Amino acid sequence: MISRSLAADLPTRIGERVRLAGWVHRRRRLKSVTFLILRDRSGLAQVVLSEAVEPPTEETVVEVSGLVVANPKAPGGAELVEPVITPLGEPARQPVFDLYRPTVPAALPTILDNAPIALRHPRLRARFEIAAASVAGFRSTVDGLGFVETHTPKIVGSATESGANVFGIDYFGRPAYLAQSPQFFKQALVGVFERVYEVGPVFRAEPHDTTRHLAQYTSLDAELGFISDHRDVMSLLRDTIAGMADAAAERAGGALDLLAVQLPVVPREIPAVHFAEAQELIARHTEEDPRGEPDLAPAHERWLSEWALREHGSEFLFVTGYPMAKRPFYTHPEPGNPRYSNSFDLLFRGLELVTGGQRLHRYSDYLAALAERGESPESYVDYLAPFAGGMPPHGGFAIGLERWTARVLGASNIRETTLFPRDLTRLSP
Amino acid sequence: MISRSLAADLPTRIGERVRLAGWVHRRRRLKSVTFLILRDRSGLAQVVLSEAVEPPTEETVVEVSGLVVANPKAPGGAELVEPVITPLGEPARQPVFDLYRPTVPAALPTILDNAPIALRHPRLRARFEIAAASVAGFRSTVDGLGFVETHTPKIVGSATESGANVFGIDYFGRPAYLAQSPQFFKQALVGVFERVYEVGPVFRAEPHDTTRHLAQYTSLDAELGFISDHRDVMSLLRDTIAGMADAAAERAGGALDLLAVQLPVVPREIPAVHFAEAQELIARHTEEDPRGEPDLAPAHERWLSEWALREHGSEFLFVTGYPMAKRPFYTHPEPGNPRYSNSFDLLFRGLELVTGGQRLHRYSDYLAALAERGESPESYVDYLAPFAGGMPPHGGFAIGLERWTARVLGASNIRETTLFPRDLTRLSP
Repeated sequence: MISRSLAADLPTRIGERVRLAGWVHRRRRLKSVTFLILRDRSGLAQVVLSEAVEPPTEETVVEVSGLVVANPKAPGGAELVEPVITPLGEPARQPVFDLYRPTVPAALPTILDNAPIALRHPRLRARFEIAAASVAGFRSTVDGLGFVETHTPKIVGSATESGANVFGIDYFGRPAYLAQSPQFFKQALVGVFERVYEVGPVFRAEPHDTTRHLAQYTSLDAELGFISDHRDVMSLLRDTIAGMADAAAERAGGALDLLAVQLPVVPREIPAVHFAEAQELIARHTEEDPRGEPDLAPAHERWLSEWALREHGSEFLFVTGYPMAKRPFYTHPEPGNPRYSNSFDLLFRGLELVTGGQRLHRYSDYLAALAERGESPESYVDYLAPFAGGMPPHGGFAIGLERWTARVLGASNIRETTLFPRDLTRLSP
Repeated sequence: MISRSLAADLPTRIGERVRLAGWVHRRRRLKSVTFLILRDRSGLAQVVLSEAVEPPTEETVVEVSGLVVANPKAPGGAELVEPVITPLGEPARQPVFDLYRPTVPAALPTILDNAPIALRHPRLRARFEIAAASVAGFRSTVDGLGFVETHTPKIVGSATESGANVFGIDYFGRPAYLAQSPQFFKQALVGVFERVYEVGPVFRAEPHDTTRHLAQYTSLDAELGFISDHRDVMSLLRDTIAGMADAAAERAGGALDLLAVQLPVVPREIPAVHFAEAQELIARHTEEDPRGEPDLAPAHERWLSEWALREHGSEFLFVTGYPMAKRPFYTHPEPGNPRYSNSFDLLFRGLELVTGGQRLHRYSDYLAALAERGESPESYVDYLAPFAGGMPPHGGFAIGLERWTARVLGASNIRETTLFPRDLTRLSP
């Protein structure tokens, strides 16, 4: 049997007999001819049927053998004639919406309820090709810098990072929790491998039904030791984001074209503004005066993003030095100005995309930080163990994959960039 | 400031001034000289201290600047002299066992209880460098074949695959479960991407305390459409395993040397024996007669592995055609012999390493398979949706990462190849 060709190969196979396989994407009956549009993982192919042949219904899985001929009007300039069609699998019912419409003719809840079939729509599938390419870019960047990939527990005995928003689990009769992040593990593993990364699920029992939150999302975590301060982490993050954008362009070009997505240009140096300066800027240039506030409001993040685009031509902006009061206990304070921190947010197209920074690394500093927050070190015995054992200055960040993809695509709801979202109400498919 | 060099770079930097950074691995006081052995992610470096200098205690994190000189007796033939030592982080206590002993002077429970520090021992760290390299090999193999990486839900609404051994979770007041495998999702996504893979955690509420089972492990899942039968899946698995071994050799050579690990040679074609033939062989050549049994006993797997090594010179053996009675409902039967299945196990060094096979792909076949097992299709509405929508012949496999690493290392307990194992009793660190 001839080995299988893909739809995208046809233009290079003119004059040859090939075997395609895929789904009947669409039947098109014209006056004198009937077309079968075949869909496979590479794209679409036009098959010309003889008049007598009744094409199989949409979403039938078929093999089609035939002769490739040039036709400037066909997609890619080639089509298949003299086809012999063999069904491999028949659908028992038709999709809830036509998968062959150029735009998706369904609202988000319908798409999500019917995800296993709906995702076959080329425009929906394309989103996840971009996401997968981005992850490959994240990996190749950190891999090239000697980072070791780890797989850490998703079931933890104590809810260290935040008591709220954790999912409880019955662990052989004992209470346990789903991990909200690999924070403890990645810091501990800096003591082992110096540079670690993880791509994995994190869980938040987010009780609000918003367009930005999921109960499970994919976190791209990196952590590295022997840094000078948070600027080394920012530099790594810049290279990582650039690697993600480059990989999307290289590996998912067709998907980007189909969705008419403009990838961001990542400047060699992403502009950075200190939190206090950011507040000054807003006070000077807008009607509002946020000085003294411990955090930035969403409207301020949007304004700062627009300012960075205007002033620096950059879709990205680092805001550094966030007040310690709003950062987790493990955050490293700003030397000489301990109200502020060696942490940062990366804003992208108006929203926070990544949070990161330098962490405390001295055991005594952890004890002091916990005492200051009125917390007992006994609750943090596991967390503190690596620091008691000697740790280098270190820091890291976590990129939310779905959030990155949503920003790149301009999707307004994070569920659009999640294959099978989990939220307050959705637990299937 | 001079940029940081790694211990492994010293032999190429003789005559230069460099800056190292890492942990004080060991202090060695000889009569006339004191050595400080520095450990970083690349290995060990010997630093020669002047007599007056008191070296920092083990596990202190330090920067050491100095001059590289040749010394045939030093590790790598080079050492650092005229050192200036700057402490970056002091340990608050010493490790429970000496990390500089050539072999690990502690039993497994001690290692696991103190994992964040214990894993710093070069022999323990090496295990996970081999594991990480293997995952990179898995990825590069399937990536090169057009597989799309996916991230699927770990929280599911129904325990489809098996009612037992699932962890229950309180999902906003509703019952839910931790996913035992991405089986449903990867099959559904064959309908979208044709070829998918996932590297992620799976969860088993394994109520037995064995050396082979974990409550969470890392599953390397692959699934592909448009196969002829299970032999296409076996061929992919062969290439994947070869890719994992090759990547371990290329990327973790130092770790393999340190542990004196002999990687398996993966034959171009892994020998395969049908389940019924396997039973015949055992009946003919041993005292036992397993014919008629629906599964292979561990002793039979060991015997077959030895037989494959003896007869075929292969450490790997496929056993195909396992009886349908012992396989999940989605397993494709053997055409013309429906007591058996188009499924396989891959045996490696006496144990089952991978299970895989061809799946049912026709909706009507699923309905019949469920009816035969007395199960109602209503409980499988989500599972069945992609098949109702038209699916190609497909199949796949799942490799347990920790099991692979344990077999490669000759580790007798799966916990030895898990950074932070979760089992019946262990929920921290």
